[in-house]
Amino acid sequence: MPEKKVKEKDTEEELLSAAKNLDGQFKEHSVAEFFKKNKQMLGLYGKVRTLTMVVHEYVTNSLDACEETGILPNIDVKIDELGEEYYEVTVTDNGPGISQENVGKAFGKLLAGTKFHRMMQSRGQQGIGAAGCTMLSQMTTGKASKVITGRGNGKAISLELTIDPKMNEPKITNLKELEKEFKGTAIQAKFKGTLYRDSDQGPLEYLRRTAIANPHAQLSFRDPSGQKFIFKRSHNQNPERPEEIKPHPKGTTVDDILSYCKTSKGRTVATFLSNDFDRMGAKGIDEVKKRVRFDMNKDPKTLNWEESEEIIKAFKAIDFIAPSTDALRPIGEDQIRKSLQSIVQPEFLTVLTRKPAVYAGGYPFQVEIAIAYGGNAGKKAGEQTQMEIMRFANRVPLLFDAGNCALTKAIQTIDWKRYDIKDPETAPVTVFVNFISVHIPYTGAGKQAIADEEEVLEEIRLALMQTGRKAGIYIAHKRREAENQQKREMFYKYIPEICKAFSAITKSNESEMRKNMEKLVLQKLKLEEAKDAEEKARVDKVLKEDDNSFITKPKAEKAKETKEKGK
Amino acid sequence: MPEKKVKEKDTEEELLSAAKNLDGQFKEHSVAEFFKKNKQMLGLYGKVRTLTMVVHEYVTNSLDACEETGILPNIDVKIDELGEEYYEVTVTDNGPGISQENVGKAFGKLLAGTKFHRMMQSRGQQGIGAAGCTMLSQMTTGKASKVITGRGNGKAISLELTIDPKMNEPKITNLKELEKEFKGTAIQAKFKGTLYRDSDQGPLEYLRRTAIANPHAQLSFRDPSGQKFIFKRSHNQNPERPEEIKPHPKGTTVDDILSYCKTSKGRTVATFLSNDFDRMGAKGIDEVKKRVRFDMNKDPKTLNWEESEEIIKAFKAIDFIAPSTDALRPIGEDQIRKSLQSIVQPEFLTVLTRKPAVYAGGYPFQVEIAIAYGGNAGKKAGEQTQMEIMRFANRVPLLFDAGNCALTKAIQTIDWKRYDIKDPETAPVTVFVNFISVHIPYTGAGKQAIADEEEVLEEIRLALMQTGRKAGIYIAHKRREAENQQKREMFYKYIPEICKAFSAITKSNESEMRKNMEKLVLQKLKLEEAKDAEEKARVDKVLKEDDNSFITKPKAEKAKETKEKGK
Repeated sequence: MPEKKVKEKDTEEELLSAAKNLDGQFKEHSVAEFFKKNKQMLGLYGKVRTLTMVVHEYVTNSLDACEETGILPNIDVKIDELGEEYYEVTVTDNGPGISQENVGKAFGKLLAGTKFHRMMQSRGQQGIGAAGCTMLSQMTTGKASKVITGRGNGKAISLELTIDPKMNEPKITNLKELEKEFKGTAIQAKFKGTLYRDSDQGPLEYLRRTAIANPHAQLSFRDPSGQKFIFKRSHNQNPERPEEIKPHPKGTTVDDILSYCKTSKGRTVATFLSNDFDRMGAKGIDEVKKRVRFDMNKDPKTLNWEESEEIIKAFKAIDFIAPSTDALRPIGEDQIRKSLQSIVQPEFLTVLTRKPAVYAGGYPFQVEIAIAYGGNAGKKAGEQTQMEIMRFANRVPLLFDAGNCALTKAIQTIDWKRYDIKDPETAPVTVFVNFISVHIPYTGAGKQAIADEEEVLEEIRLALMQTGRKAGIYIAHKRREAENQQKREMFYKYIPEICKAFSAITKSNESEMRKNMEKLVLQKLKLEEAKDAEEKARVDKVLKEDDNSFITKPKAEKAKETKEKGK
Repeated sequence: MPEKKVKEKDTEEELLSAAKNLDGQFKEHSVAEFFKKNKQMLGLYGKVRTLTMVVHEYVTNSLDACEETGILPNIDVKIDELGEEYYEVTVTDNGPGISQENVGKAFGKLLAGTKFHRMMQSRGQQGIGAAGCTMLSQMTTGKASKVITGRGNGKAISLELTIDPKMNEPKITNLKELEKEFKGTAIQAKFKGTLYRDSDQGPLEYLRRTAIANPHAQLSFRDPSGQKFIFKRSHNQNPERPEEIKPHPKGTTVDDILSYCKTSKGRTVATFLSNDFDRMGAKGIDEVKKRVRFDMNKDPKTLNWEESEEIIKAFKAIDFIAPSTDALRPIGEDQIRKSLQSIVQPEFLTVLTRKPAVYAGGYPFQVEIAIAYGGNAGKKAGEQTQMEIMRFANRVPLLFDAGNCALTKAIQTIDWKRYDIKDPETAPVTVFVNFISVHIPYTGAGKQAIADEEEVLEEIRLALMQTGRKAGIYIAHKRREAENQQKREMFYKYIPEICKAFSAITKSNESEMRKNMEKLVLQKLKLEEAKDAEEKARVDKVLKEDDNSFITKPKAEKAKETKEKGK
């Protein structure tokens, strides 16, 4: 390589002027400008994906609002084609409505909403999604989004809104009081550069999966061709409201202590701890007291880093009761079973709702897993059926970014051969995972993948192994049964051939030989059938002892069917 | 299922009070609070990953600052272990330094910086990264980050800073003027809950790849055990500075027109278009004029959505020259070749820098690909060597979130069998991809994966096929050569055996038979060798006509070596 002279700025002045020039370019930008330029970070990219994401943002908001105010959700989604790659999405709910004061911010300001500061399970948690849709609509069509909202008290309003990205503030126009009564919220927005498809990642599949995880919600959908779909509720009661909880001592960080103590109403560190933390009784306070070197009667606002670190060390050493489950509302084994039996119609199904656990930051979470085998389980891929993974977070279907998601990763680390699934690429299996938490650690603001926190991965793996073991017992049993059946058939098939050949060589009586042979085989088979029955009884017993595993069809009958199809 | 009565809120008042209660919870939060709670979105999660990401944020800032002010970068990285899962990172550069006015914001305010508003290739583009590290440091250790910065003009300062997350503003303490001279910027911050590993995704590998893509930078590193590494510059000149460019008409959106026109200095729409867009000459203006129905002499500030849409339709119909390449600075085929030859030492290498293209939003981008085969190419995985993918964006190594990245996806869609790579899982191949653009469409604020924009995927695929074809010629030739060699060896090996056996059966003279046999084989081989030589000449010619493919060792010699190792 030729040695060139290092070309640097030659003089001090030149360097200083370059540096000052750089200083002059220093600017701040608003979070709306940021996401406007980076709409892909909100998942708002890809023609098909964008429409699904828009439906997702509006529908999750509606579900949350209904449930929080004790209303059984009825949500109606319409998509109209306005032109080439140009669609309008309308979502109407029967929710509580939004006050005039908040409606602009809810749909027209990023990082604003009811959910960010709470320790409570909800679908939304960022205060970004719906406002991001408003921004995308105005960016691609120049049009405002239309909102109608009312509380059924005669004061419904309609308005149009856009976002001023520089200020991250809503601009409201055409605000009107409505003549007629309306209870709920309707949002209508137009999007160019999008495409409606009835695919794996399209709005219809999104709604189908939403129905699976929300059996209490009624969803209706009209696609651009005018076709209508209704997912009726299969359960007439809202899930019990999760309660807002206090952070659990395990997993709380020093930084958390220092920020909670500033706003605590407790006058001493002791009252601060007992007021502001979950599972912190008198015994817990005593245990902490024994372990810290400062006076627990001091004002919590004066806690410094070192003292907070002492508290955290104490928290780590003390045994606390597991976090309150009040904050978490799993779908429940019974509901998952009903949903999957009605929609996937598997031959075998095992369901598990694990106990709550905690991940970094003091956030309780809980994992629900179901493994469905046979029937319509699995995903058709050409001739084959491969393992299908249905991911949910707080009952919200995750359709995108699977490769990056802790739920997928956990599933991939499982050695499925142990559970008699030789190759997930050719297995008629659906794995259902619902991850619930007061704070889902999404990898991005588009909320489609969960970060692989250690505790999370481990819990999912444990749940998969626990359910996998049960599915494996059934699958192995089915495989053995099929193999034995095949063996039997082979014996019968070859007896005539073999006897013919033998009699030709040995000149002995063919039909007698055949009789003897059949007798022999029958004896052998009887022994085997006894073994089979024993085995079947064992499997049935194992699976029956378990409340969470379900065999839909009598196995023998099913085996026959499969055999016939196989011919 | 038992029919339960729908449990809704019973009275209007109850509903209204629930709705009002929800209203009361409506809050806004700062972008700093948002990312503090969602640090995984900045990639700041995982014990090992976190340290790599911190190094990444500081080093990219240093490289950008040096290059922008014409300084050849010398960057020194140190990681010290302070305790269990507790490390300190120090990065010192010889850059231009930061003014006292900006230093707080640069390291202590999210969404602030020099790069967000520009159309110019740079590593950073968000104004989030370094401030995110400051936040993580204070969250995990309670400690401030230390900064020393100076311009070599006797006014160096040192200071400590943290972020106030509620306000997203820096808090500076211990600000001092330094006694001794200092030119550059040094940042030092502590992180708990992290782990140093010398792994695929550790800081050392990050710096090694940074060196590959930045041959003009000198990087030194001291790991926690005290081991030192120096990556010397192999090129003594900074890449030519990219210039800030104007947006290209193709790919500009209606929304862009409406926001650019507000700040344009042009007094008519015609001057606005020619001032504010790339490649917009008098001819372009004429072509637009022909296609729009409004007066091009009107004030651009009065453009409405429909008029802007007419302009965009005109843009789509008109042929423009490809975007200025001034904004893009590829590494260049020559530099990539040198880097890979020195670091990967492959047997065969082909390099390609494609011409710039444009993706949605008017952003020019360019793709550089290299395929290296043999030598140290590929990634060791146990006994096997598998295809290794080195991803870069604007010369920055991307070590994480591969599954989600357009670069990986494009590579996975290639039918490698066509290029004689039967199974990427067992191929000694390194695929190098550098994606450069004035705006990288990252999928998340952690900037580790690129969104799969259609135009981007297609360009990468084309580049892969173009280089793949060349690699395939070489690999196929090598394979045939090896097969022929094997055939030859087999002939010689079996002649004695065959002759012995034949002579035993036929009682003919064994040594004479052997001589004849050898003669026969020799003749046959000569014919084949002539064919081989012809084929070799053809391959050499094909590859020699191409400036971008390089064979490092004479193929025959290499083949022998491999053979010997194989024994």
